[in-house]
Amino acid sequence: MVIDELRRVLGADKVLTDEASRAGRRRDSWVPSQLADADRSGEPLPCCVVRPSTLSDVIDVVNVCRAARAPLVPFGLGSGVCGGVLVSADSVVLDMGAMNRVREIDTHNLTASFDAGVRGSDAEAQVQARGLMLGHYPQSIGISSVGGWVATRAAGQFSTAYGSIEDIILSLEAVLPNGEVIETRRTPRASSGPDLRHLLLGSEGTLGVVTGVTLSVRRLPEKRTGAAFFVRSMDDGFAVQREILQRGFQPPVLRQYDAVESERMFGAYARSGDGLLVVVHEGPAARVDAEVAGVAGIAAQMGAEPASAKAADHWLAERNHVPTFGQFFENGIVLDTIEIAALWDKVGPIYRAAIAALGAVPGILTASAHSSHGYRSGLNLYFTFVARPEERSDMKATYLECWRSVMRATVEGGGGISHHHGIGRIRREWLRSELGDGGVALLRTVKQALDPDGFMNPGVLIPEERTNDE
Amino acid sequence: MVIDELRRVLGADKVLTDEASRAGRRRDSWVPSQLADADRSGEPLPCCVVRPSTLSDVIDVVNVCRAARAPLVPFGLGSGVCGGVLVSADSVVLDMGAMNRVREIDTHNLTASFDAGVRGSDAEAQVQARGLMLGHYPQSIGISSVGGWVATRAAGQFSTAYGSIEDIILSLEAVLPNGEVIETRRTPRASSGPDLRHLLLGSEGTLGVVTGVTLSVRRLPEKRTGAAFFVRSMDDGFAVQREILQRGFQPPVLRQYDAVESERMFGAYARSGDGLLVVVHEGPAARVDAEVAGVAGIAAQMGAEPASAKAADHWLAERNHVPTFGQFFENGIVLDTIEIAALWDKVGPIYRAAIAALGAVPGILTASAHSSHGYRSGLNLYFTFVARPEERSDMKATYLECWRSVMRATVEGGGGISHHHGIGRIRREWLRSELGDGGVALLRTVKQALDPDGFMNPGVLIPEERTNDE
Repeated sequence: MVIDELRRVLGADKVLTDEASRAGRRRDSWVPSQLADADRSGEPLPCCVVRPSTLSDVIDVVNVCRAARAPLVPFGLGSGVCGGVLVSADSVVLDMGAMNRVREIDTHNLTASFDAGVRGSDAEAQVQARGLMLGHYPQSIGISSVGGWVATRAAGQFSTAYGSIEDIILSLEAVLPNGEVIETRRTPRASSGPDLRHLLLGSEGTLGVVTGVTLSVRRLPEKRTGAAFFVRSMDDGFAVQREILQRGFQPPVLRQYDAVESERMFGAYARSGDGLLVVVHEGPAARVDAEVAGVAGIAAQMGAEPASAKAADHWLAERNHVPTFGQFFENGIVLDTIEIAALWDKVGPIYRAAIAALGAVPGILTASAHSSHGYRSGLNLYFTFVARPEERSDMKATYLECWRSVMRATVEGGGGISHHHGIGRIRREWLRSELGDGGVALLRTVKQALDPDGFMNPGVLIPEERTNDE
Repeated sequence: MVIDELRRVLGADKVLTDEASRAGRRRDSWVPSQLADADRSGEPLPCCVVRPSTLSDVIDVVNVCRAARAPLVPFGLGSGVCGGVLVSADSVVLDMGAMNRVREIDTHNLTASFDAGVRGSDAEAQVQARGLMLGHYPQSIGISSVGGWVATRAAGQFSTAYGSIEDIILSLEAVLPNGEVIETRRTPRASSGPDLRHLLLGSEGTLGVVTGVTLSVRRLPEKRTGAAFFVRSMDDGFAVQREILQRGFQPPVLRQYDAVESERMFGAYARSGDGLLVVVHEGPAARVDAEVAGVAGIAAQMGAEPASAKAADHWLAERNHVPTFGQFFENGIVLDTIEIAALWDKVGPIYRAAIAALGAVPGILTASAHSSHGYRSGLNLYFTFVARPEERSDMKATYLECWRSVMRATVEGGGGISHHHGIGRIRREWLRSELGDGGVALLRTVKQALDPDGFMNPGVLIPEERTNDE
């Protein structure tokens, strides 16, 4: 029995079988899982939760589960929103929360090494105490782990200048499904074969367990300042953002809200019918000043009137608030966010198509979007939908219909189906549209090679094999 | 017979068997291969050279060679310097030079798509004609191909601001060893599972054939200006570079030459005994001005005296000159460059250890280095050695001893063994030090899964399996 074997190798204190521990880690924050819990619909609990405290513990867990063919479900801090964590009754949940040491902070090389289970906000506090910053600020920073960022290919709010997790990670340590450890070299850049970090980045627990992460951090900036502009339409705002980025400016934060969200999020700083473009500049003071003037000049030239810079301060103050949905669900309201990405010429059409499609879903209350990550080639869109179906029992169906609306508009519009939340279970059926048959086959080949027993987080990310008659 | 089958599927005109064609593609620009040619030492020629002109041709070649178990050796433009291309008598060389269409240049999204065989300088000329630039400028731009940049994980001279090929590539198309095609989605960023582009980036022909590449290009900068500073020692210069980069400045070019190279490369702009730090700034004019002042301020504060900015102009004018070594070889002189990377606290010790080790090689004439790519966490070093062994027949042995000296100093000093030239044959035995046993095993697992027949560029990159008694 896998529990006995885990107790034998780890010690009984690291193997939890009480109902509260099992219930607390049976899922991430995916809406259908939350709905199931709210309905007390008897969703399964895992057979046990293991809490390794060392790399060697993780190796043991992987080896025991592989030998026992027990589904092993890695769990960071449970903030995922795509169903990347969900158990069956025979699952072993690998809770990384007890592997939470800060390993080393190096102010000379600007590197910071953490156990995978370190909470993001703890990591940031630790480096800030040394005058540094991570530069990676997902909204979930207070409820997500450093290892989770790697496993899901996370992006932070300051990514437009500082990049996403793949640009900030220097090296990683991971346990592969066969129990072997890889630790990539801490070097600024390498041309030493394929970058093996990328097999783990975005693998969502299917190709291994990330146990340690070294980030390439930054000194705290000399200056930070905000700005905001009114944009008359999403297309107008996209044009302004494109000009800012393609002219070579890189403010870390560049967020554009449609009229619905501007009013909802910015109240007094919003102007009815207009969208808002919010900017945060950071860096050496003189360079920030040049960038502020450059961005303001582009906005003026393109007819985007200045709004109060307090809109940026407001955003900075509120940015880590993660709303909880429980109250909504109790009132029969279902809601979620969906992020996608696209090239500049596709982002406007996808915005309109997705909002229109959401608007046609029975029971829809609001459908809105903002962008939050900009690139030379395009940007992301972050949709929010709120719906109240007539029948409470239709909440999940309504939820899925809203997701289908946005995914369909994205795929048909030539966009990418996920900017930074990942695939999990909710996007799995759409991954074939994203990767193509060749890409899915390649992913399946790699999965089969690394995890021939298929015990690592089954049901997540990787589409089922196609049957012949499809 | 593989030649007959290739002629049947491709047409006879795409299958070259004349001696000149076979001799011209039997190798890249690796020094031992050049030495062998100079010695006319009867190195083998491939059985044939195929010149596909379409994706479908490449698929056919891959399928024929796999079925025939014929070693397939992809060949871009042959500028590699690590022995990534070298044939045996039964090899089929896949010369990508005839797949050289510019597929699309998109000035709205700033994307440029090329067949893999397009010459770098042709690609740059094509985008420049539209007011754009690639932002990727390897010294070899006139003799290397876009697909070769991907296959080797190349870095360009402007990487300190613009990133290396993995930061500039938007999507790729490739033929896998099983004949299937993957084409990754053109989207600015994705969290859709592991980034499959990274299985091809740096794969050096062992995991597939890159057939098409889309780059995320840039508008030409509003302003470019250069600067230069004298540094009294390499450590002094490293400290200045570290301060520039860690304070948040990112000039695209930041190159530091030791005293030997300063005098050799910059003549009248050098000062005896000092090193030179050469900077090129690019971007919006006001931001460039802020960066110029910021960098000059740091240099002044740290005691690096201004040198003539003409040193930067001189470098810009000379930067794409690739020296040929033939004349040296004829005179019994062997020489090469070796690039590595390391964190800031390791780069000084590695520099000294490598220069000392090179200095102890019998017949050494000069050993020198510069840095050419800077990061928050460290930088690269680019060593040059020139040696004349007493016996002409010792040239290859002397060459290998110089390489061993630098590789050993790098590995013992905790650096990364290759910054941007790749592994090929020359670094293959050192890859285990870089990736660890776990990393090498993982790479071998992926290779075995994608190319179970082992016909894709055998002998390159991937270390041999260890025997039990090692």
